[in-house]
Amino acid sequence: MTTTYPTPKAIAAPSLPLIRQVVPVQFTYDVHFTTGLFELNNPLLAQVIAADGEVGPKRMIVVVDSGVLQCHDKLLEQVAAYANYHHDILTLSTDAIAVPGGEIAKNQPEWVDQLHQVINTAGICRHSYVMAIGGGALLDMVGYAAATAHRGVRLIRVPTTVLSQDDSAVGVKNGINAFGKKNFLGTFAPPYAVLNDFSFLTTLDDRDWRSGMAEAVKVALIKDAEFYRLIETHAHALANRDMAAMQQLIYRCAQLHLDHIAYNGDPFEMGSARPLDFGHWAAHKLEHLTGYNLRHGEAVAIGIALDSTYAYLSGLLSQSEWQRILKTLQMLGFTLYVKELGDYLDQPRHPQSIFKGLTEFQEHLGGELSVTLLSEIGKGVEVHQVNLSLYQQAILIMQEMFESVN
Amino acid sequence: MTTTYPTPKAIAAPSLPLIRQVVPVQFTYDVHFTTGLFELNNPLLAQVIAADGEVGPKRMIVVVDSGVLQCHDKLLEQVAAYANYHHDILTLSTDAIAVPGGEIAKNQPEWVDQLHQVINTAGICRHSYVMAIGGGALLDMVGYAAATAHRGVRLIRVPTTVLSQDDSAVGVKNGINAFGKKNFLGTFAPPYAVLNDFSFLTTLDDRDWRSGMAEAVKVALIKDAEFYRLIETHAHALANRDMAAMQQLIYRCAQLHLDHIAYNGDPFEMGSARPLDFGHWAAHKLEHLTGYNLRHGEAVAIGIALDSTYAYLSGLLSQSEWQRILKTLQMLGFTLYVKELGDYLDQPRHPQSIFKGLTEFQEHLGGELSVTLLSEIGKGVEVHQVNLSLYQQAILIMQEMFESVN
Ligand SMILES: NC(=O)c1ccc[n+]([C@@H]2O[C@H](COP(=O)([O-])OP(=O)(O)OC[C@H]3O[C@@H](n4cnc5c(N)ncnc54)[C@H](O)[C@@H]3O)[C@@H](O)[C@H]2O)c1
Ligand SMILES: NC(=O)c1ccc[n+]([C@@H]2O[C@H](COP(=O)([O-])OP(=O)(O)OC[C@H]3O[C@@H](n4cnc5c(N)ncnc54)[C@H](O)[C@@H]3O)[C@@H](O)[C@H]2O)c1
Ligand SMILES: [Zn+2]
Ligand SMILES: [Zn+2]
Repeated sequence: MTTTYPTPKAIAAPSLPLIRQVVPVQFTYDVHFTTGLFELNNPLLAQVIAADGEVGPKRMIVVVDSGVLQCHDKLLEQVAAYANYHHDILTLSTDAIAVPGGEIAKNQPEWVDQLHQVINTAGICRHSYVMAIGGGALLDMVGYAAATAHRGVRLIRVPTTVLSQDDSAVGVKNGINAFGKKNFLGTFAPPYAVLNDFSFLTTLDDRDWRSGMAEAVKVALIKDAEFYRLIETHAHALANRDMAAMQQLIYRCAQLHLDHIAYNGDPFEMGSARPLDFGHWAAHKLEHLTGYNLRHGEAVAIGIALDSTYAYLSGLLSQSEWQRILKTLQMLGFTLYVKELGDYLDQPRHPQSIFKGLTEFQEHLGGELSVTLLSEIGKGVEVHQVNLSLYQQAILIMQEMFESVN
Repeated sequence: MTTTYPTPKAIAAPSLPLIRQVVPVQFTYDVHFTTGLFELNNPLLAQVIAADGEVGPKRMIVVVDSGVLQCHDKLLEQVAAYANYHHDILTLSTDAIAVPGGEIAKNQPEWVDQLHQVINTAGICRHSYVMAIGGGALLDMVGYAAATAHRGVRLIRVPTTVLSQDDSAVGVKNGINAFGKKNFLGTFAPPYAVLNDFSFLTTLDDRDWRSGMAEAVKVALIKDAEFYRLIETHAHALANRDMAAMQQLIYRCAQLHLDHIAYNGDPFEMGSARPLDFGHWAAHKLEHLTGYNLRHGEAVAIGIALDSTYAYLSGLLSQSEWQRILKTLQMLGFTLYVKELGDYLDQPRHPQSIFKGLTEFQEHLGGELSVTLLSEIGKGVEVHQVNLSLYQQAILIMQEMFESVN
């Protein structure tokens, strides 16, 4: 081993002490709940912008999920009329940009490039606004573009699905897929504001309506037994698209996610623990194994059922609570078994075995394995190793209980 | 004005209160000062990585400025030998990636894409390391790639120029250029650690050695009269590449920048004030107008001279302090006038007039105009409007004083 690097003889070895830098950053944003956001008599959006206290009218560009546009064909006119009505407060710097909704929005880096271009030509600065209207996928993509232009321009999220209103859009993450990996590119970047408009939910298809409730079950199970009972009690109404029950579910679920981010001590996930990812190691893998035929929430429901079953088998969770969980998921309309869950069950290292999901989950987070289980309804616990044969048993039990149901 | 948007009649107007989300995030990183960083008997790098407390060896990829490699042709072997020597602590996941230094690194998005690819194939996760060795431009580009992969992998910065050691690399910003605009793409992302190795400075060319001192003069002028006197006293030694004087300059300058970031209350620059950008509105424009023939620091020196002259003319700064400033800049070897400063002096809206820089500066930051001036040496003051004819006068004075000198 040679050390031929030019030894800096001329340089006095410095005895300068290290400088420990501590940078406290505080992000603040409001999450609002409304209906008819773009009705002229709804002042919310104008108020949110006027509240920046800066000289108006403020520039804004609008990016919309084309799946939303299909169901709300007057939306762009309405946004334009709204901006026109409040022309002293906001001005649309360019025509709205429509982007296909769903995972497509996150699979093509070209969308991000295009938004960067529009941000540039429209003269959007760090004090201007990008408003994104759509499902979680579109919001993730627009959020990434907004967070990286000028090191971050203001993003107003208008989530239009249950999942985005109760979970993804209230949080601090964005991202797109790359190299075939979910969210390979992205940043942590809190929004400027989140405007949850329940009216959009009326046009969701049943699967998207249902899918977003899995995150509510998840967060209730790990954090809030009372909220869990509320979901359980209203499961039938929720499955039948009762809007009042859904509003309650979204509000409480969003609140629990927000509190977790604010108070868990690791909002930008620098450590390895991710309790909110209960049920998610299997879910992520199942989404992939089914070629994204499963919606995220549908996969999460199966992941919750699996990890609850495992928790029961390992003696952590009581039998009665385990059964209550499965029953609620079923009442909400979730399918709890897909073929891909049982494939290659005895070959845990096979790339198409569900168990590869454990390794991939660990790799994505980095550090040691950390899986959330339940000790009771409302109480998540972290474990750092798992028993594969118990997991195999859990899957066989689920197969027996639910395979025929489909 | 029509409101044909489907009125959500079925939805009870929700009276759900907004949720105000406050997310406190704390970033901590150490800035170290050393020589011979990759000598086998220098434990610093190994210690920094071992201090993460996680199971080793930790994966790392290395990205190097090829301008540095030219002057330190054994560097890659030495890094490899170092990793080999500390193989229980770190492991190089792939060969080092050499990237051209200087602004080229920031002008081609392909470099960022390539690094994302390497991060993917090398299995770098949020608990692995990217080490970037080079000047401020390379560090900005690698920083952007590292901050956006997996929503941020750990970045160890090893700055190799005066400017990057005393300013850019100790801070929280990264970025690349796009659409012909400096730093159009980027994020705020604190590094994992900064390792300042003075040995690298021995091979800098004179312009790069000098250029980085402009930021020290700048921060001294707005914040620290005592530091300013230190620079003034050692100006001759500094101009003649006295390493001991330079170490002092870098240490204090880095410290002032770090303190500013930590204590100014706006580390991620959400407001409009940017006191550290003293002298920079003109500097940015001059870099552009000279087709980047001027180094950033060279342009900053002219910007400082200009804003100090303006401060003197407007009665803010005393004549004697104004002259001390010009003298120090000259002693350090800076050229204080370039032709582009005086072009289109009476056409402030001309795209090639220096005064367009004021508008562009405001647009980049967003919000109202905010320019830092001096009321005395060591004391910056923010102003929100400027008198163009006084600025014209300042430029004419500088022309008279310094044009012939060149
Ligand atoms: N950033 C985060 O923290 C986070 C958290 C969880 C999930 N996610 C991401 O969210 C995405 C899933 O989001 P999603 O569940 O909202 O689905 P989605 O965004 O994929 O949208 C599903 C479909 O619904 C359509 N749609 C959206 N709103 C509609 C409406 N009001 N009426 C009719 N159709 C509508 C879309 O066009 C799309 O076709 C995934 O990419 C996932 O990775 C992100
Ligand atoms: N992120 C921030 O907060 C911040 C702040 C200020 C400036 N910057 C950026 O920093 C960049 C300028 O950085 P810089 O002044 O370090 O110059 P640079 O990175 O442009 O490098 C200048 C030249 O020096 C060479 N070089 C680097 N180290 C060397 C060494 N030890 N020996 C010999 N040659 C060496 C490089 O290859 C390059 O050719 C600009 O892009 C500017 O925008 C960023
Ligand atoms: Zn989820
Ligand atoms: Zn600078």
